[in-house]
Amino acid sequence: MKKLRRSARLVEMTQCLLARPHTLISLSAFSERYRSAKSSISEDLAIIREVFETEGIGELRTYSGAAGGVRFVPRMRPDRALERIVSICRELEDPDRLLPGGYLYMTDLLGQPSLLRDTGLMFASAFAGLEPDAIVTVETKGIPLACATAQFLNVPVVIARRDQKVTEGSTVSINYVSGSSRRIQTMSLARRALKEGSRVLIIDDFMKAGGTIRGMIDLLGEFRAVVGGVGVFVESGAVGAGERLLSDYVSLARLEEVDEKNRLVRVRPGNFFESPEFSRFRENDPQ
Amino acid sequence: MKKLRRSARLVEMTQCLLARPHTLISLSAFSERYRSAKSSISEDLAIIREVFETEGIGELRTYSGAAGGVRFVPRMRPDRALERIVSICRELEDPDRLLPGGYLYMTDLLGQPSLLRDTGLMFASAFAGLEPDAIVTVETKGIPLACATAQFLNVPVVIARRDQKVTEGSTVSINYVSGSSRRIQTMSLARRALKEGSRVLIIDDFMKAGGTIRGMIDLLGEFRAVVGGVGVFVESGAVGAGERLLSDYVSLARLEEVDEKNRLVRVRPGNFFESPEFSRFRENDPQ
Repeated sequence: MKKLRRSARLVEMTQCLLARPHTLISLSAFSERYRSAKSSISEDLAIIREVFETEGIGELRTYSGAAGGVRFVPRMRPDRALERIVSICRELEDPDRLLPGGYLYMTDLLGQPSLLRDTGLMFASAFAGLEPDAIVTVETKGIPLACATAQFLNVPVVIARRDQKVTEGSTVSINYVSGSSRRIQTMSLARRALKEGSRVLIIDDFMKAGGTIRGMIDLLGEFRAVVGGVGVFVESGAVGAGERLLSDYVSLARLEEVDEKNRLVRVRPGNFFESPEFSRFRENDPQ
Repeated sequence: MKKLRRSARLVEMTQCLLARPHTLISLSAFSERYRSAKSSISEDLAIIREVFETEGIGELRTYSGAAGGVRFVPRMRPDRALERIVSICRELEDPDRLLPGGYLYMTDLLGQPSLLRDTGLMFASAFAGLEPDAIVTVETKGIPLACATAQFLNVPVVIARRDQKVTEGSTVSINYVSGSSRRIQTMSLARRALKEGSRVLIIDDFMKAGGTIRGMIDLLGEFRAVVGGVGVFVESGAVGAGERLLSDYVSLARLEEVDEKNRLVRVRPGNFFESPEFSRFRENDPQ
């Protein structure tokens, strides 16, 4: 690579860091790539770090020593995250989303690139300290969310399936009872999809009683995986405390009320926004 | 936003452009955001454009006039794309991927963040001129690829399903014959998933005779959608010309041969790499 001026180097380094989140890049790698002294690279990184932190793009962590370098940890600023989730809640409250039976149509939202980017970044912020080996979801609607989160955490996505396909090789299956419908369902995961003892993060689009996620946890137990965290986009608030099969999870939004007759839907920010870092912004919450 | 020095502005603008591909951003928006003269912003953009083009990150297109501005069009440089696809072909040729019946296990690859990023960028490069309204795929394995492509093209992902779910509202279903297995299958799409007359790009992970994609095209016909392009990750070369149900598609890799007995798999770059822009790099192709 030809020697670049500082201005060009800043553009290239920014791009390089953003494209490789949660990846340790050594100062020597940058120094060789740009044929510049490590001291110049350190100055460049200081400029990038300041902008990333001021603008809420994420953290730039520096590690010293022989194995040292720099690592970009994407994070969404709390005020922006809360503002974004409030606007998502407003979208979910649109009565045109009501389906017969009190279900809520949200498939369109789960395909929007900006929503996927932002919620992926919120999950990546919530679970930045977890350092999972993989993100696990079950088909279908949770897959785009899981992929977006995986891009920001730079880990593979593993998808449990409802059917069994010859292209998966040997699989492990479990039957589980979906907490809300009380129906017996099946999910399966390819034997080679996950190394034994992996640390995983479960991501799904919706949780009512938590039967599906409980099923995923049981299935992952067959792989001796450690479930380090569970993130759901929307949880249903219409579940009694005793009914919930799961207590430790992060939700981005909570469906508080669905009144089919009066065409009323109430959605609020989920438990992720109850953590202390959001407390000083919550008074601005229009709810 | 406080006034930034040029160096900080370059970092922030680079981030802003990368996060909003295929989005027109007006010079005034940048100028107001950074409280800088439009002439300074133009100089910044010239620096960013040069780095993006030299480093093969993509194009920065400028539009003049009142509705003018700048638009980032992500593109992978042809030499890098060819190099990357050759390494993906090598990974696919690993005989440990062979499953009984001559199938190839590739689910792990389709979950890797770097592969998803790179193939998404290849599809986005191949279809940059198409300007689709949506990307359509059918569950399950094509979804991560479709999502990655959608992020780079900044359009929504729409997923046809094999089952029918109450959470999708009213749906349109078709039965189709999978070209290779000759079995009748069903796929359905929510009525509200796609506006009438949308221009769509179909993305899928694997194509043999093309029956599934043919099915998607028929289903999309019910929405009066215009299928502007079809992209598949791997196509099977073991299909006679007369058997193929589809002629106009872009493939990234082609499965040439699977010899189960001798545990031999041969995979080559797909037809995307036969286009003229790749010709001067192909002599370096180790195949």
